[in-house]
Amino acid sequence: MNYFKSILPLMAAAILCSPAHAQKKLFTMAEATNGMSTTLVPKGIKGAVWQPGTDILWQVEKKNNLEQWTLTNYAEKAGSSVVEQGTYPEGEKVTSIPNIKWLNKDIAYFINGKNIIEGHLNNNKFDWSRLATLPENAENITVDKSERIAYTVENNLWLIDKDKKAVKVTNETDKAIVCGRAVHRDEFGIDRGIFFSPKGNLVAYYRMDQTMVKDYPVVKWDVVPARADMVKYPMAGGASHEVTLRVFDPATGNTVVLKTGEKHKDHYLTCVTWSPDEKYIYVGILSREQNHLLLNKYNAKTGEKVNTLFEENDNKYVHPSHPLMFVPGVDNEFIWWSERDGFAHLYLYNTDGKLIRQITKGSWVVNEIAGYDKAAGKVILTAAKESPLEKHIYAVSLDNEKIERVDKGAGMHSAVCSEDGKYALDVYNAAGVPKNTYVRTTDGTKEIELMKSPDPLADYDRPEVRNVTIKAADGVTDLYGKLILPLHFDSTKKYPVIVYLYNGPNVQLLHNSFPESGNLWYEYMAQHGYIIFTMDGRGSWNRGTAFEQATFRKLGEVEMDDQLKGVEYLKKLKYVDAARMGVHGWSFGGFMTTSLMLKHQGVFKCAVAGGPVMDWSMYEVMYTERYMDTPEENPEGYKKSCLLDKVKNLQGKLMLIHGTSDDVVVWQHSIDFIKKSVDEGVQVDYFVYPGHEHNVRGKDRVHLMQKITNYFDDYLK
Amino acid sequence: MNYFKSILPLMAAAILCSPAHAQKKLFTMAEATNGMSTTLVPKGIKGAVWQPGTDILWQVEKKNNLEQWTLTNYAEKAGSSVVEQGTYPEGEKVTSIPNIKWLNKDIAYFINGKNIIEGHLNNNKFDWSRLATLPENAENITVDKSERIAYTVENNLWLIDKDKKAVKVTNETDKAIVCGRAVHRDEFGIDRGIFFSPKGNLVAYYRMDQTMVKDYPVVKWDVVPARADMVKYPMAGGASHEVTLRVFDPATGNTVVLKTGEKHKDHYLTCVTWSPDEKYIYVGILSREQNHLLLNKYNAKTGEKVNTLFEENDNKYVHPSHPLMFVPGVDNEFIWWSERDGFAHLYLYNTDGKLIRQITKGSWVVNEIAGYDKAAGKVILTAAKESPLEKHIYAVSLDNEKIERVDKGAGMHSAVCSEDGKYALDVYNAAGVPKNTYVRTTDGTKEIELMKSPDPLADYDRPEVRNVTIKAADGVTDLYGKLILPLHFDSTKKYPVIVYLYNGPNVQLLHNSFPESGNLWYEYMAQHGYIIFTMDGRGSWNRGTAFEQATFRKLGEVEMDDQLKGVEYLKKLKYVDAARMGVHGWSFGGFMTTSLMLKHQGVFKCAVAGGPVMDWSMYEVMYTERYMDTPEENPEGYKKSCLLDKVKNLQGKLMLIHGTSDDVVVWQHSIDFIKKSVDEGVQVDYFVYPGHEHNVRGKDRVHLMQKITNYFDDYLK
Repeated sequence: MNYFKSILPLMAAAILCSPAHAQKKLFTMAEATNGMSTTLVPKGIKGAVWQPGTDILWQVEKKNNLEQWTLTNYAEKAGSSVVEQGTYPEGEKVTSIPNIKWLNKDIAYFINGKNIIEGHLNNNKFDWSRLATLPENAENITVDKSERIAYTVENNLWLIDKDKKAVKVTNETDKAIVCGRAVHRDEFGIDRGIFFSPKGNLVAYYRMDQTMVKDYPVVKWDVVPARADMVKYPMAGGASHEVTLRVFDPATGNTVVLKTGEKHKDHYLTCVTWSPDEKYIYVGILSREQNHLLLNKYNAKTGEKVNTLFEENDNKYVHPSHPLMFVPGVDNEFIWWSERDGFAHLYLYNTDGKLIRQITKGSWVVNEIAGYDKAAGKVILTAAKESPLEKHIYAVSLDNEKIERVDKGAGMHSAVCSEDGKYALDVYNAAGVPKNTYVRTTDGTKEIELMKSPDPLADYDRPEVRNVTIKAADGVTDLYGKLILPLHFDSTKKYPVIVYLYNGPNVQLLHNSFPESGNLWYEYMAQHGYIIFTMDGRGSWNRGTAFEQATFRKLGEVEMDDQLKGVEYLKKLKYVDAARMGVHGWSFGGFMTTSLMLKHQGVFKCAVAGGPVMDWSMYEVMYTERYMDTPEENPEGYKKSCLLDKVKNLQGKLMLIHGTSDDVVVWQHSIDFIKKSVDEGVQVDYFVYPGHEHNVRGKDRVHLMQKITNYFDDYLK
Repeated sequence: MNYFKSILPLMAAAILCSPAHAQKKLFTMAEATNGMSTTLVPKGIKGAVWQPGTDILWQVEKKNNLEQWTLTNYAEKAGSSVVEQGTYPEGEKVTSIPNIKWLNKDIAYFINGKNIIEGHLNNNKFDWSRLATLPENAENITVDKSERIAYTVENNLWLIDKDKKAVKVTNETDKAIVCGRAVHRDEFGIDRGIFFSPKGNLVAYYRMDQTMVKDYPVVKWDVVPARADMVKYPMAGGASHEVTLRVFDPATGNTVVLKTGEKHKDHYLTCVTWSPDEKYIYVGILSREQNHLLLNKYNAKTGEKVNTLFEENDNKYVHPSHPLMFVPGVDNEFIWWSERDGFAHLYLYNTDGKLIRQITKGSWVVNEIAGYDKAAGKVILTAAKESPLEKHIYAVSLDNEKIERVDKGAGMHSAVCSEDGKYALDVYNAAGVPKNTYVRTTDGTKEIELMKSPDPLADYDRPEVRNVTIKAADGVTDLYGKLILPLHFDSTKKYPVIVYLYNGPNVQLLHNSFPESGNLWYEYMAQHGYIIFTMDGRGSWNRGTAFEQATFRKLGEVEMDDQLKGVEYLKKLKYVDAARMGVHGWSFGGFMTTSLMLKHQGVFKCAVAGGPVMDWSMYEVMYTERYMDTPEENPEGYKKSCLLDKVKNLQGKLMLIHGTSDDVVVWQHSIDFIKKSVDEGVQVDYFVYPGHEHNVRGKDRVHLMQKITNYFDDYLK
């Protein structure tokens, strides 16, 4: 057996489905919208996961297209072998391929409905049993290596200890106080609220008191009569929630509150990390102003603060987004992320707070830590080092900062490392590379090709994509963009152009990825006679803090200047019809789209703004105050960026679109804009997606993209 | 002095403003929308009111365009004279012309903010004083002839007795229980909830318990964050509110509850009328099924039922809409409205419940009772006797049913009688008659012309209007319609047509009125090249019960058949472009518009449906169960008329429009339709008017009509 066994049938099938000289097709709207995640998704290996303490990569596959599966394991030396699913516990009905995770070298588990099914691996055979059955409404299910399970039911935290009995850890009766969930609206990289200690003997959790936060009504329309569900939505400058961290000891039933401070309760508790010995918890205490962070160490038994290891300060903002990573096997050293030198880099600290060394350095940013090669003393990471448009895998020595690239091939690589950091699963894509999957040794010496996806778009008549680099409005900074040209492009003709943009913080649209255009809807539009242009201006992600913070306290100005540079570039192209330019964006892109229409009349004839922020004072505390300070501190910035009082400037056609259940950019933004448009006698178009949240996803997204397309067809084409 | 004195300056001004041979104008959208109630309103006399016990008609006018006013009184013999406004009480700031009412022959009053200002008329001079000052949030202010004042504050009733002290009559702490307000969602002609007894010694009031009615959220968007206000909205077939009538005696402080029944508490208490001697209250108890009415007499002191005078039954529905009118000076006889012979007519009963005589009779309906000529024993009324398209004033003898027309001139007359019924103020308009104002003696012997309005539309280039009569789908019934032809109409050309419709119960669109078209927006559209067609099909008002009840249990079928007869008629006109027909309606008309698009594809290319009912099971109990029975009783009728499950049938362009605060046809109707359109992948257009209720009124209506016009211009023209 070898690594390729399971892949060959797929490739054969793909070849059979591609008649050599058939007429090339156009995308349907459904394909253009959801194809890349459904029918046109590039083939790859599924559910791949490393078995701890081994060099074995497991892959879960359907068996004979039935609802049965096999686990195939790949090992460098042993090659692949297959494990059958084995017998489930009596009465257990598993209707889809399980998402297998490992508790340790010998025990895997998966969640089936509300049952947690545990499998002991003995002699290449799984012995499955029910570890626990959770209540129907359990959420945030967290299974620890110690086989303890924590979960939330509504606003309270529950724990199933080794004795398999469920204990109600918290007993909050006010629904506005929630325990065990992610807090701070998932900003600061926070994606969970339950933190088992390294050995699983203690569980730390967030407790968020939102009683002081104003209610915002989200109307549920699919019941009759409609119902208003109240959500706690803290708006910029307003009362924000108060978060604490608590530690529950199942052995004693005691709960300790970390003494993170009584004075400024609306600060942020970030980077929550246990010490390897379970005695301490490290918390990045970020001031509400977000320009001052203390890395504090707390005694997990008493809640007392032990000390502050160090501080991070920035006159704009500090943006902690990662927990500490203790160096495996070295209990008093950890890796810390900081943007203090202008780029997101890694720093090695000891637990006395002493900086040992800056691990990575340069005019590029680290993206993720993928693992640690204990033998070599190297951290395995991904970074945008070759280009802001690419992401590659690197091994960096903790001793001497030496950085070596692990992967090969241009494009966007991701890495999942084996526990010992010796192997990395490298899945990547690039222009012309749908999806390639390799196992690599992180010393760069070996690569094992697991799969190369055939081109799922081979049968389609696809437009030409041109990469462009233009200077930002500062005259210095390079900005990256793409031009998607109409099918059968004729440079002597004049075409309408649609600019698609986002250009807000934390997001980068342009990559060297598959498909090269970045989005099949762009290609659909190009198939129907439009030029699409898209570009990341200053303020966007992955370019360092100077680039990102250029927009500080004045969202929608510098970015707009940059986008107008894009427009200037387009207008110089003789095949661009400057009288038929449109613009479209969602969320921050909706804000940008509307800003362009109101502040630069006559540039765009037609625009579609989805889920747009119309007034930053109605956006959430965490995000907004980071980039804008509070309305009180920055009245001018809020006033200039507010679009509600500028509706009368509108020329041309503008359609707003909003999900009625949007709890990110609340519906009120567009409703208030519509109200103002009526007040001012300005005609604006509008559409809503009932029940949809901040993005219109799934099948309904096809309707959305058709709606947007129709609008450009009606008023731009 | 004579009756004409105050009118001459106005007429002169009108003439000066109309240069003889100037180019005729087109209407602006603002004029087309609101002109008839603002800048283009035909001149008439304002605030005209008869002084009780006299033949004097008072008119309130601005003096010298300042915020000062004069009362001019007109008397048949004495001619006119002027009374200055007199001196207001110290500190009273009156900033607009007051709406003067009379308590009796000597005392007038008006409400200024929350002050009630009373004026004693002595020697042609008013002596003003403050009768009472009410709380800021007082509503439903009712001033009785006895100078007692009742009003509501939130959900409770207050009374100011003769001692000028405010008494809290009710003390309901649950906001879902409301006292002193109109009940049953203002159906059954109910427009108030406070009923002073004839001498003012007792006050009867409605108490409505809505605790069992489901909440519907109406979102208030003009506060940040938005707020959901819960309204009690009983939907067809669901739990309805329970109403009682109570009588408060200020002398004792006692309250008596009328014993209107414990068994069916969700019945309707209609036609509330005091006996002239204050001892009894008559109530029309209508079953929730609305096909059975008992006219009951209750003892106002004990609340006990005295007896049932008579019953009204109908196998479709009884629709009581008027209180009893006791014959002045005859305490044991009253006039009763009934549609029992197929038309709304008047019946004379005595208080034993004995029918003395049917007063009016014929294939026409009585519209209003305007007064009673005590000397002649004649009731003065208006009726659609000459034609369903006109309304005239008649005097009918109670003794012998002899009916005599009082007014002259075709058109729509209204009547306000002097207390003795000897005089009627007759204001009327018709095609070509903007507004004529007369005082007539109700014996028809004298007419005194007060004002003839010059044509406010004389300067405009107005389209030709053609009245058409076509046969309904039953082949028998005459239906009345109007065709508004494009300016510079050329019968050899083909024009797009917009059908404007309503066609629901209780509404009639077509009259012989001014302007002849019925609506200046129709004329605006005709000025811009459209033909407008509008017609009342079966189910609409003013044609008797057989005509109205043709739609019983099947709303949207017979009416649609009739409207399609209109379409057939249009298609036969060689100047109609059948490929470019549009349809527009609001409320029931929005339901009709959407029904036509979904059930008769291909007829209309383009449609705009405002505030549309999409599913009658989401409309209110009173109206819906009257015309449709409950969903349980008539599942087939609800299913056939429901539009939510028929979205996929849509061909052509459809725009829905809704006021976000609509508490009549709740917003959920159109939101749910949009949801279904997304589900089905059907493209529909949408717009909302934030903060507007069931109709978009005021300045914003101009935006609305422009929005609708643009839609037809984009997709129909």
